[in-house]
Amino acid sequence: MRFATRAENLKPSDIREILKLTEDPAFISFAGGVPDPDYFPLKEMEEAVGRVMSNYGKKALQYNATEGHPPLREKIAARMSKAGMETAADNIIMVSGGQQGLDFSGKVFLNEGDAVVCESPTYAGAISAFKSYQPEFVEVATDREGMKIDQLERALATNGNIKMIYVIPDFQNPTGVSWSVERRRELLRLAHHYDVAVIEDDPYGELCFDREKKPTLRSLDTGGRVIYLGSFSKTLCPGLRVGWIEASPQVLQKYIIIKQMSDIHSNFLAQMQIDQYLEQNDFDSHIARVNYVYRARRDTMLQAVREYFPPGCSYTSPEGGLFIWVEMPEGADARKVLQDAIKEKMLFIPGETFYPCENVKNTFRLNFSNVKEERIEEGIKKLAGVLPGH
Amino acid sequence: MRFATRAENLKPSDIREILKLTEDPAFISFAGGVPDPDYFPLKEMEEAVGRVMSNYGKKALQYNATEGHPPLREKIAARMSKAGMETAADNIIMVSGGQQGLDFSGKVFLNEGDAVVCESPTYAGAISAFKSYQPEFVEVATDREGMKIDQLERALATNGNIKMIYVIPDFQNPTGVSWSVERRRELLRLAHHYDVAVIEDDPYGELCFDREKKPTLRSLDTGGRVIYLGSFSKTLCPGLRVGWIEASPQVLQKYIIIKQMSDIHSNFLAQMQIDQYLEQNDFDSHIARVNYVYRARRDTMLQAVREYFPPGCSYTSPEGGLFIWVEMPEGADARKVLQDAIKEKMLFIPGETFYPCENVKNTFRLNFSNVKEERIEEGIKKLAGVLPGH
Repeated sequence: MRFATRAENLKPSDIREILKLTEDPAFISFAGGVPDPDYFPLKEMEEAVGRVMSNYGKKALQYNATEGHPPLREKIAARMSKAGMETAADNIIMVSGGQQGLDFSGKVFLNEGDAVVCESPTYAGAISAFKSYQPEFVEVATDREGMKIDQLERALATNGNIKMIYVIPDFQNPTGVSWSVERRRELLRLAHHYDVAVIEDDPYGELCFDREKKPTLRSLDTGGRVIYLGSFSKTLCPGLRVGWIEASPQVLQKYIIIKQMSDIHSNFLAQMQIDQYLEQNDFDSHIARVNYVYRARRDTMLQAVREYFPPGCSYTSPEGGLFIWVEMPEGADARKVLQDAIKEKMLFIPGETFYPCENVKNTFRLNFSNVKEERIEEGIKKLAGVLPGH
Repeated sequence: MRFATRAENLKPSDIREILKLTEDPAFISFAGGVPDPDYFPLKEMEEAVGRVMSNYGKKALQYNATEGHPPLREKIAARMSKAGMETAADNIIMVSGGQQGLDFSGKVFLNEGDAVVCESPTYAGAISAFKSYQPEFVEVATDREGMKIDQLERALATNGNIKMIYVIPDFQNPTGVSWSVERRRELLRLAHHYDVAVIEDDPYGELCFDREKKPTLRSLDTGGRVIYLGSFSKTLCPGLRVGWIEASPQVLQKYIIIKQMSDIHSNFLAQMQIDQYLEQNDFDSHIARVNYVYRARRDTMLQAVREYFPPGCSYTSPEGGLFIWVEMPEGADARKVLQDAIKEKMLFIPGETFYPCENVKNTFRLNFSNVKEERIEEGIKKLAGVLPGH
């Protein structure tokens, strides 16, 4: 039996292998990108699914519309509109987490050999989702304000195969960086000029600790060019795999048919459960509570990093999200550091995996959302002990 | 913005458009391929999800293993083994319904221009799932025992691009036909000789009314060549989108990584809910109860067809599943008949949509599982009134 080219050299992701170690409670893990399950609204979600099963059980368990549960799509449209992204339920399709939005974006836009622009570094799961469609990756360097616009412009001017730009403007994975509003405007101007699609991946935007949320690309876009990927995975819970795609009608129509072809529709009980949860609870208060906890963890981590990390390591100071990004001195190798860290029962993700092409060895990602404060300092201290230059 | 070639000419499926009419209760619909929600075990499923949420809520709502919930995979492996398909949980990955198993099979095996062999006619959803990967379709004619083996052999001997054979050996969609054991053995012999993968799609096998279930291809396969797609959609309920893929370790590894790349994992609460349901209830008794109801509906439909259909129409007499397949005289056009049927508030699916290449207009599919007996006779009578030759 012969496999398709795309499936020939598949390897399990590094992250996956590292995450297996996190099952050992002796480890302090800054590796995952996951919310703290102690803050899931368990009782409320149990009540919600109970109400759905007893009042609408037949509907929840039957085949349903590919687009998803209408009342949930309406609530999402209302939330988006309130956040400056004027839209309606008809412009939204429910999908199985933000990851499926990425896979479908590849399916809708990418022929083999087409090019996709992404931030360098970028979300490893997006790289692997797009790889199914065998594109060329064009990495654009980033700084603390987002992509370097001159590099983006050069890429678009010189590569006629570029079909889409993929970005995470808020509290990026892996860097935690939030783009400046100016850079957001510049990106949209260029996307419009070169007529390419923009995939805005926004799973972390509501995990905003220190200020008002900045306007999303979607809210600044007047041309129907942005495909917006939303998710309940970080704000509510990821296990139900409920996310959504918002796009202009012509584009959304493609995603709807692709969804139909791929898995008919997403789990309806979960969509109705989340709809009931939103109906009966104050979701914004829940998010505020989670942000309160995560902000304290970020503060603890940054303070420990400042205190214990050797000079020569630089790091981001995110205003939200789940991650801090560390750059060690030139020549350092995060994989080797990880080997030493594992001996100390400490985990993080080496940065290599977040670059589709570039070979960068001296960076790594730290997650603060799923480690209790008392263990954060201990973990950072241990990690500092194995960093080069210590 | 330019779309990928695969997304350029997407059109919503005919079936989808027809099914929209079924929302009007005045219609008698033989169109869907859906189980009767009145026989969902609602109370048991409500209890099951309640138990999961109160005992394992954090786990159910958190990110989880791509392969799926281990106890559910064990129960499925035990059921498969009992049915003659000796296997273990490690050979099983949970996916979002059988449809996702089809999409992933395309992703694992098909390069653009590769060929896939299928029954003529075959499941419309498989055609559209595979189309994402832009293969050539090779239709092999079928009769009441399955594929015509001489045609299959000719196809394999003359087309070197064939990578896989897709079949629904039991109670096929759309024909209701169950392959003879001899044909099953012949297919496996040829697949082995020509070294191609076999995708066995088995959502209907347990809806077996009149006799013992025949051995699946998977149970006859000794070479690890069959990829088996299972589903709870027809036996339990489809809204949770829980299906599975069973394959040899080398092949399953590809599917696992593709799953990780596509949507990380399927809804875990639903997997744990079904696991709890299976733990606490007698699933086989439930299936027997459903089969008792569906068998009576099939009998009623066949009797009405015999009584009212004009001569010149032939039809299958399935021993299980959800469908009866009708062939009208040469020259008849099922789409035109449907227009007349709609005036009578009657629905079915014209056969055209089940042929990837052939242009066959004189066939249609009737579903009996989701229509109450008292309406079946009325519907068939109305339909007979608009058939050619009446």
